[in-house]
Amino acid sequence: MPDKVSMIVFSGTDDKLIPVGVISQAAAALGYEVQIFFTGWAMFKLLKEPMPETWPKEFEGMVPKLKEGLARVKAPSWKDMLKEAKKMGAKVYVCSLMAEAAGLKKEHFDPSLVDDIVGVTTFLENARGGQVLFI
Amino acid sequence: MPDKVSMIVFSGTDDKLIPVGVISQAAAALGYEVQIFFTGWAMFKLLKEPMPETWPKEFEGMVPKLKEGLARVKAPSWKDMLKEAKKMGAKVYVCSLMAEAAGLKKEHFDPSLVDDIVGVTTFLENARGGQVLFI
Amino acid sequence: MPDKVSMIVFSGTDDKLIPVGVISQAAAALGYEVQIFFTGWAMFKLLKEPMPETWPKEFEGMVPKLKEGLARVKAPSWKDMLKEAKKMGAKVYVCSLMAEAAGLKKEHFDPSLVDDIVGVTTFLENARGGQVLFI
Repeated sequence: MPDKVSMIVFSGTDDKLIPVGVISQAAAALGYEVQIFFTGWAMFKLLKEPMPETWPKEFEGMVPKLKEGLARVKAPSWKDMLKEAKKMGAKVYVCSLMAEAAGLKKEHFDPSLVDDIVGVTTFLENARGGQVLFI
Repeated sequence: MPDKVSMIVFSGTDDKLIPVGVISQAAAALGYEVQIFFTGWAMFKLLKEPMPETWPKEFEGMVPKLKEGLARVKAPSWKDMLKEAKKMGAKVYVCSLMAEAAGLKKEHFDPSLVDDIVGVTTFLENARGGQVLFI
Repeated sequence: MPDKVSMIVFSGTDDKLIPVGVISQAAAALGYEVQIFFTGWAMFKLLKEPMPETWPKEFEGMVPKLKEGLARVKAPSWKDMLKEAKKMGAKVYVCSLMAEAAGLKKEHFDPSLVDDIVGVTTFLENARGGQVLFI
């Protein structure tokens, strides 16, 4: 049985989506079974019409330099890294409770990113025996 | 031996307490051994006279809609979910170092929520061999 | 084989560095194999000339009392706790992708804190089979 890495992505600021992409892609490439469960504010980043960019208030002044640096080293966007991870088998889910509370259905989400809307129980069962990160 | 889910809850914004409640209740219902270790700002949410509501500055504008949606789908409060988890065996601890630094003793905390004040070493020993989330 | 605790430290606010120090030192003392991978904003706290203190906007008003309380209970600084953990074998790494994007090399980082700059793949391989916290 392969090792598993599961992520619960709650924070919706764009900075924290970078490690979501990086870890997903690296773990999938290493042969890990990867699942990512988007909930909270982060869920709105997966919509066909996603929430605009949001950066943490504490570090707003450092964002232009971060973006410039990531462009210079040709880092792919977090969405492109997530898509690469998905090509290697990673699964991306949206939390059914939070989607329902926001009045969102599967058709509202970008189908190139989201595999399904599932409950936390399904997520926990899939995650059993593996590593879990809360981001 | 049952699988274990342990959580370190540090962030004191109310949004992140929703997944604490949801995950606790779902994991306890699945038969996981659940322990939750409140520290940092989150500890003040467990007081008999808790800290007032605090929401992340970046998403303040979305809070009324979130609350309305959670009410519409009849989601229980995080405290009620935590209490359900506790009925199924989940344990809730407060970090002794942070409590002492804040001048707080066991009698300051809501006894319907908090089982005990313990040190991080006890938490880590209880968490050994299981999943750990930092929230 | 000893149990392992790995941490990805992304958030750069000073409050979250307290649990990084506390958990590192406690886990190392318990005999865990500990590695800490600094990335994102947190990386700038390890520079020879570190980023100034930054606290979460939501809790700024509570910071003076927190600092006063930690001083009163004689809690060591997070850097001193990290150094204690390192004496017991903990390893501290900086993320190569984020360092390169920021134009930072090994010589920019405080050698009493940082062991090496490594990629996320190395981190994940080291973390395999253990607990992983995202802070």
